Amino acid sequence: MTDIFRKHTPRFAHRALVDSGSRPFYRALSDRGGEALIDGRRVIMAASNDYLGLSTDQRVIAAATTALKRFGSSCSGSPSVNGTLLLHQELERRLAAFLGREAVVVTTTGFQANLAIAALLGMNDAVFTDMSNHASLVDGVRLGFAVHHKYRHSDMAHLESRLSRADPALGKLILTDGMFSVEGDLCRLPEIVALARRHGARVAVDGAHDIGLLGTKGRGVGEYFGLDDGADLITGTFSKCFGSVGGLLAGPQDVIDYLRYNARSVLFSASMPAPAVAAALAALDIVESEPERRDRVFDLTERLHTGLRAQGYRTGSSMTPVIPVHIGDEELGMRVWQGLFDAGVFTNVMTAPVVPRGRALIRVMVQATHTEAHVDAVLDAFASVGRRLGLIPPTAPGDFPPVVLARRKPTPSGS
Amino acid sequence: MTDIFRKHTPRFAHRALVDSGSRPFYRALSDRGGEALIDGRRVIMAASNDYLGLSTDQRVIAAATTALKRFGSSCSGSPSVNGTLLLHQELERRLAAFLGREAVVVTTTGFQANLAIAALLGMNDAVFTDMSNHASLVDGVRLGFAVHHKYRHSDMAHLESRLSRADPALGKLILTDGMFSVEGDLCRLPEIVALARRHGARVAVDGAHDIGLLGTKGRGVGEYFGLDDGADLITGTFSKCFGSVGGLLAGPQDVIDYLRYNARSVLFSASMPAPAVAAALAALDIVESEPERRDRVFDLTERLHTGLRAQGYRTGSSMTPVIPVHIGDEELGMRVWQGLFDAGVFTNVMTAPVVPRGRALIRVMVQATHTEAHVDAVLDAFASVGRRLGLIPPTAPGDFPPVVLARRKPTPSGS
Repeated sequence: MTDIFRKHTPRFAHRALVDSGSRPFYRALSDRGGEALIDGRRVIMAASNDYLGLSTDQRVIAAATTALKRFGSSCSGSPSVNGTLLLHQELERRLAAFLGREAVVVTTTGFQANLAIAALLGMNDAVFTDMSNHASLVDGVRLGFAVHHKYRHSDMAHLESRLSRADPALGKLILTDGMFSVEGDLCRLPEIVALARRHGARVAVDGAHDIGLLGTKGRGVGEYFGLDDGADLITGTFSKCFGSVGGLLAGPQDVIDYLRYNARSVLFSASMPAPAVAAALAALDIVESEPERRDRVFDLTERLHTGLRAQGYRTGSSMTPVIPVHIGDEELGMRVWQGLFDAGVFTNVMTAPVVPRGRALIRVMVQATHTEAHVDAVLDAFASVGRRLGLIPPTAPGDFPPVVLARRKPTPSGS
Repeated sequence: MTDIFRKHTPRFAHRALVDSGSRPFYRALSDRGGEALIDGRRVIMAASNDYLGLSTDQRVIAAATTALKRFGSSCSGSPSVNGTLLLHQELERRLAAFLGREAVVVTTTGFQANLAIAALLGMNDAVFTDMSNHASLVDGVRLGFAVHHKYRHSDMAHLESRLSRADPALGKLILTDGMFSVEGDLCRLPEIVALARRHGARVAVDGAHDIGLLGTKGRGVGEYFGLDDGADLITGTFSKCFGSVGGLLAGPQDVIDYLRYNARSVLFSASMPAPAVAAALAALDIVESEPERRDRVFDLTERLHTGLRAQGYRTGSSMTPVIPVHIGDEELGMRVWQGLFDAGVFTNVMTAPVVPRGRALIRVMVQATHTEAHVDAVLDAFASVGRRLGLIPPTAPGDFPPVVLARRKPTPSGS
């Protein structure tokens, strides 16, 4: 007889890496204002998705504290039967207005917002997904019943050929990350929307990383491309730009109503607790009223990203505060990570299965709460580690590809 | 061309019920100490899963407030790359000791703890599931690759026949709720464990509703049956007895390590925020130190459940504070719900697809923070609504089946 537990052990992919002495994963840290304490040591936190720095904003914390005292630490049940507060309804209304959509339903995590899409994917539907989509979108599709077509990352010719060959009688949905969380690049929304219109498909965009960050008003990748109505359905999370935890789906009223009563990850999970809802509401106020935070993140990103390229690193097509530094070999990736950590900089090393095997990368991320000194110290660490390991030339190369960032459009002067 | 959005609208099952004027679902309320405010009106809250009443406990709220101030409102990323605090590790250690397991990994929701089981279900495995399992277990199985055998609710002969017919070469897992959340009954753990041993299967029990509530020490359904080691893997949630939100998986060290690096709902979701972790830790202290809360819930449950049976209601095989009152017809169920609500009692009406069509029920739940007066008022409301709608006889029947509850074993006197 086979033991369902025993046989999984040898498949455990990261054991060798972890046993080699580096501990890049599940490292206990506490993070505040762009720095983190790890094993009592203060390091620069260059691996947080808290782009706007709102998880430690005093206004966000004060709002969460008030809600905690007033409503308690849990709603103790699902939103449909016992877990809805007026506060949830307020957050849903505010987000619908912010995103310019008829209705919003909030979910307990962003992961579960993407799982909810499964309820839309019936046996008479087809779904078209970018191969670099987030794991939660992949699982959302797997929980649905639609015919599934994958297209190569941001390859519009491939998407078009998939759309052309699909059964015209099927309902169609194109599903993509807005901003990709490993390589920091954006989906090609204008072309996706044009293809969708031509083929009668709907478009769903996961704005987990771009809502709050991109566009003049922070509405995300649609606003950045001047296509506020480009996505028919938007999903998102409060754990990146909104200093909280939880997710959202925004779209037409009847679709959101349908999801409220049919999406299992909405119906059968205890609702967002009051402090998380209040934190997200307070963060939304700041996202709307302080566009300068977005400028600040992009100023620092430009400094860091340009500096890395000037040193000779390959950083791909990132246009955002998520900067991938391509290494390749997984063990070398671990050594780079360890060198940076020893130099006082906490980053992420991405290995298989998050990236394809042999395409390891170091992910560096910028927060509005970083200082120029933080960025320069990160650059110094990359320079010394990269030269020591022979990743970059001993002196800076003469020229390098220019950095193009997804900054918000400049506002007209005087406005 | 078919619109993937449009065609879903007519399938929307609850529209007719909602349009009829009753609004039992997604009702905004705020709940405190066994009562709730709904549209400015104070009602008895008989529909909360906060069995021990810890979501408004001052010690739980104080712990969450301290953590919020110290660590902020979000960890802003997944536990593997940037979202682990020492506080998460402390909660995992404490839970492992409490549940008597080698290791624990916490997840952002209980729903996601159950999804994580998918990582254990390979193509060479078979999984055996109770047909009344929670939706999150159903989805966890659907995300896995194992051969799936369902057995009729708590039907051990059916489980045995499924086990006997399965390919002996496959790894086997029996997967069940510990306490079923709609009907309040328990899995037949002693028989399940015996069958598992005979057939070389592992047992995974979802303790979402029973951890904290059942057993002398509150360790759940295993302790209640005197089978602390009966389940090889335990999942659970902090949103019922622990006044928080989040989930857990407890089991052997190598299995938990494997899940940490392979379960997508663990790896790819922003981690539990610090206030939620601190709330769960404070609640665990109370679960361990105040067994009288469990006695109190069961005292009140006995009063309510016995009273309902004495009135002539059918309440099934519930042994816990979750009491189903069987009605049958869905529209009648809605009328009973509305009558109870008008009488000042908030309950849940369960209709399809949560229960089979035509088997609607009213779910009533008891909290340690209820008073005897609350319970008696609930009984009065059931009596008047039931007589008016002809559900129960005008005078109480002479005898009724005795109520059997899953109380903790009496402790020896003097201990």
